[in-house]
Amino acid sequence: MNVSLTSKIVAEMLGTMVLVLMGCGSAVIAASNGIPDVNGVGLLGIAFAFGLSVLAMVYAIGHISGCHINPAISVAMVVAGRMKAKEAAFYIIAQIIGAIIGAGILYVIVTNQIAGFELKPYALGSNGWGAGYLGEYNTVAAFVAEFIFTFIFLLVILGSTSTKNINGGFAGLAIGLSLTLIHIVGIKITGVSVNPARSIGPAIFAGGAAISQLWLFIVAPILGGAVAALVHGALIENPKNFKE
Amino acid sequence: MNVSLTSKIVAEMLGTMVLVLMGCGSAVIAASNGIPDVNGVGLLGIAFAFGLSVLAMVYAIGHISGCHINPAISVAMVVAGRMKAKEAAFYIIAQIIGAIIGAGILYVIVTNQIAGFELKPYALGSNGWGAGYLGEYNTVAAFVAEFIFTFIFLLVILGSTSTKNINGGFAGLAIGLSLTLIHIVGIKITGVSVNPARSIGPAIFAGGAAISQLWLFIVAPILGGAVAALVHGALIENPKNFKE
Amino acid sequence: MNVSLTSKIVAEMLGTMVLVLMGCGSAVIAASNGIPDVNGVGLLGIAFAFGLSVLAMVYAIGHISGCHINPAISVAMVVAGRMKAKEAAFYIIAQIIGAIIGAGILYVIVTNQIAGFELKPYALGSNGWGAGYLGEYNTVAAFVAEFIFTFIFLLVILGSTSTKNINGGFAGLAIGLSLTLIHIVGIKITGVSVNPARSIGPAIFAGGAAISQLWLFIVAPILGGAVAALVHGALIENPKNFKE
Amino acid sequence: MNVSLTSKIVAEMLGTMVLVLMGCGSAVIAASNGIPDVNGVGLLGIAFAFGLSVLAMVYAIGHISGCHINPAISVAMVVAGRMKAKEAAFYIIAQIIGAIIGAGILYVIVTNQIAGFELKPYALGSNGWGAGYLGEYNTVAAFVAEFIFTFIFLLVILGSTSTKNINGGFAGLAIGLSLTLIHIVGIKITGVSVNPARSIGPAIFAGGAAISQLWLFIVAPILGGAVAALVHGALIENPKNFKE
Repeated sequence: MNVSLTSKIVAEMLGTMVLVLMGCGSAVIAASNGIPDVNGVGLLGIAFAFGLSVLAMVYAIGHISGCHINPAISVAMVVAGRMKAKEAAFYIIAQIIGAIIGAGILYVIVTNQIAGFELKPYALGSNGWGAGYLGEYNTVAAFVAEFIFTFIFLLVILGSTSTKNINGGFAGLAIGLSLTLIHIVGIKITGVSVNPARSIGPAIFAGGAAISQLWLFIVAPILGGAVAALVHGALIENPKNFKE
Repeated sequence: MNVSLTSKIVAEMLGTMVLVLMGCGSAVIAASNGIPDVNGVGLLGIAFAFGLSVLAMVYAIGHISGCHINPAISVAMVVAGRMKAKEAAFYIIAQIIGAIIGAGILYVIVTNQIAGFELKPYALGSNGWGAGYLGEYNTVAAFVAEFIFTFIFLLVILGSTSTKNINGGFAGLAIGLSLTLIHIVGIKITGVSVNPARSIGPAIFAGGAAISQLWLFIVAPILGGAVAALVHGALIENPKNFKE
Repeated sequence: MNVSLTSKIVAEMLGTMVLVLMGCGSAVIAASNGIPDVNGVGLLGIAFAFGLSVLAMVYAIGHISGCHINPAISVAMVVAGRMKAKEAAFYIIAQIIGAIIGAGILYVIVTNQIAGFELKPYALGSNGWGAGYLGEYNTVAAFVAEFIFTFIFLLVILGSTSTKNINGGFAGLAIGLSLTLIHIVGIKITGVSVNPARSIGPAIFAGGAAISQLWLFIVAPILGGAVAALVHGALIENPKNFKE
Repeated sequence: MNVSLTSKIVAEMLGTMVLVLMGCGSAVIAASNGIPDVNGVGLLGIAFAFGLSVLAMVYAIGHISGCHINPAISVAMVVAGRMKAKEAAFYIIAQIIGAIIGAGILYVIVTNQIAGFELKPYALGSNGWGAGYLGEYNTVAAFVAEFIFTFIFLLVILGSTSTKNINGGFAGLAIGLSLTLIHIVGIKITGVSVNPARSIGPAIFAGGAAISQLWLFIVAPILGGAVAALVHGALIENPKNFKE
């Protein structure tokens, strides 16, 4: 089955919109902007929101576009030789547009609170690190965390969607819940990006440090994903290592 | 396999009863009427209760009726050309009756507390918004939230149950957990409806604002679902975009 | 494939042991005997412990014994015509023995705390109701809750394992998570039984009210399960309602 | 399909790295070193982190190495006759190296907090028991818990991956979530090991009691797993008990 690029682009845009609106929305609406209280969903609720967004969208649009909804995944798929660079470019543009739309819808909702809404630093679930950001980790921790978390995320994606894997139907479950896992561990470090588009969307509305720290959430996830593609191809699923 | 309308109607009625009794029950019995305390299941518990109700019923009755248990889904299925309007009408009546029975059983349980039971505004897990309702969001936020959440819910439903999707067995998982996701994000705004029947059931017992605000929980979900059906059919799974 | 009765009985015994040890263990060890504190897993953790016990055991022993691990299920299977009464009797004996072993292992663990262990009323996760039991619901609420929760549990079991259901592999997921759902809603009412064996195990060690209230956790679940089998057979999967 | 030993060893090493980094990381980074606060993921979050690490890795590398990532599993597979002892030795070495790398990455992250990092007893999520360790259970409780939890874990693994089980695709789900279950119940006793490699990794960095108590987390899980293999082979899936 050959799906048109139009369908794929619409699917990637809507999927990334869902991820940003629902993932960041859980932090902003349901858990007091990342600092959960007893009446909120807590860090665990935020972790499930991000992961279940991906799980749901994999089964909703996976058969259309593969459901990357993340530039680091599209780049890794090019490195792994599973996608052409030109198509990846279209995917990435659609993902960034979708992320901005998702953050925009979230902005509309939160500014319609009766008590009003004040745009604080790192608003709308923006990623960040350092003094004043959750667990106050430094740049080394932030970079290592984003790199290794995206590396792990891509190991799960590449392995669970491999044509050598007979349980491919479970990929959406494994990928979505691995993103929940990554958020359980990492929210206090950077808020968890592992996805440049997810960081760009809210940063555009939040401005300030969310913009100036954006570079790390572009570089580290793309590097981590690309290295995972190389390691997976050379050491885990290297064709030389398989005797049919 | 051709299932009789009788079986379908009984399944839809029981399924919606389960959704309202268990979803609203989690808020009323286990989390102090939507305001969770340390000894309760919290907002995350309520979110899982609604989602797992749907997940369980999809695998219990999906092969009988498709497990809509939600008028917004039945309407969207008519818009998507997957169901006849006449059958949808029977479904919707069964769903509303089931929702009222579910709320009624919940009423019997909670009024049998030793300490007694006082019927407060928005009782039995009723939906609502504005001053005095959880996060105190205004009508714009409530409408946008219910519209976009139902839009997202139907994107997941239409995509995961599509005949073009080879992983159709996972639809119940994706649909149920996407409802959990929507509740994680949205409970503080409207309590989350995305389902007119789920709002009607408790409102009949709660009365007051729960009744006068019912219009939004009928209009916004049905609109959101119908728009999702149109977008999905025209932009994502438009037959013109598929080359077999 | 025809499995011997010996294998089935061992599987049912071990499965019920796991359910009681892990389900009740979560309440006793991890959540301060049903009253969760900030440092515990909370009601939601207990709900997942019971549900995941069943989910895990369905995939572990479902192909051996069907994984009832619950006398109310075995009785309902007889009512539904899916099992012979004589085999059900062996199952139920094995389940009760397994439940007692599970409670016994839990007793060994909790009495080996350095601070010592005092056997309080409703110890070891015993079911109960009324003054002094969690939400303090009366006998009517307790009976209605146990009846309707088992009714719902069996609707999920009978539907998801039906030969007419093409997604039978997902039954373990749906059944396990529906037990989580029932616990999210019902712990504050009765601690949730829906399973006579699960109530008998800890009651033998707890004594007192846990024993004198045992009748309800035998009668209500068995009735609820049997009625579900009748409703399912007559109204949902009645062969007359299916045109092949 | 015949996978090379190189691929298997790399997969086991990376998988165990993920388990230790993410499981222990959830306790250290997200829940204040095992003592969760209101702003943390809590014991339930830690339980999901360990379980989802396994769930994700089963679908990522299960088709390569079987995803043991646990010496107790590899030994049990030898006892069950499903693996050769020599291959198990390579697996176990790779698992221990992976666990040390995982703990090392975690060490790098947590020492890069702006507020600095003090190496306390049982640091980096080390297992332990007795005075000063969470629920303060004694050695008997610790040994019984680790033995019976690994016994249960292996019952799930052996049953869900049995060639007699037609729902083998769900094994990753059942195995991962059974590890979540075990953590929900057992964290307060020993922090839950059921896996010698998972205990060795952080202990090397933590030193002190984490090292001197390591013996229990090697002996009890390996015994529990081996007994499960014997019971499963003799009483549950004994070929004599199956009539084809």
